[in-house]
Amino acid sequence: MTPNLHPRLAADTHFVAKWPLCEVRLQDNRLFPWLVLVPQCANVCEIIDLGESDQAALMREIARASRALKTLLNPDKLNVAALGNVVPQLHVHVIARFKTDAAWDKPVWGQGTQAYTPDALEEFISRLRAAFTA
Amino acid sequence: MTPNLHPRLAADTHFVAKWPLCEVRLQDNRLFPWLVLVPQCANVCEIIDLGESDQAALMREIARASRALKTLLNPDKLNVAALGNVVPQLHVHVIARFKTDAAWDKPVWGQGTQAYTPDALEEFISRLRAAFTA
Repeated sequence: MTPNLHPRLAADTHFVAKWPLCEVRLQDNRLFPWLVLVPQCANVCEIIDLGESDQAALMREIARASRALKTLLNPDKLNVAALGNVVPQLHVHVIARFKTDAAWDKPVWGQGTQAYTPDALEEFISRLRAAFTA
Repeated sequence: MTPNLHPRLAADTHFVAKWPLCEVRLQDNRLFPWLVLVPQCANVCEIIDLGESDQAALMREIARASRALKTLLNPDKLNVAALGNVVPQLHVHVIARFKTDAAWDKPVWGQGTQAYTPDALEEFISRLRAAFTA
């Protein structure tokens, strides 16, 4: 069953792709190249609320998102996190970090937001989709 | 090959258990019940530096650590994260969060540290080991 997207996730992110387990979305913050994976399972808040095969699928999709960001952007580090203190619906952040970025070496949460322009958003989403299928 | 533990991880955490992939360690911060899983593979900084079967094992061990914290402490939320901006050696944080804790609803990094007393440390590690084998 496909769950409704939490309103905060819907407001802060844009649709990029639908994978076997997750919807892949882009955080609307051009300070940090930042994907959000949202498992399409209802009423799931924790990774351990997923069944074992969905947990394995989640890891494969984290790796797929990570490889795409690495290929496209060659970041200094990837940050992968399932926090959910504010938005309980299970979602996993996969973020490309650079030693030159606006928050290095801190975590990105609470470190500022700059929305993409419509053109930049469209272009980055196109590049992501191409990287996902490469 | 078993890697050396990064000096910062060695200084900030205590040994709890050795699992098939990871060494399980406890962050020495009683503000937050906080496990750190360190895959016993040399020269690994990113989850995607692990082979596919080790990635799957990492997810199983994240789930095992999560279940133990949930069983022991019944937290309001689990936080799971591989960041590594400061300590590049791959390590995964698994943290029990409470709406009453010192950082809620923010991430825990940079939100203060209080070391365990020796007695409290020993007692919590014993409870963790018992939960791991339950």
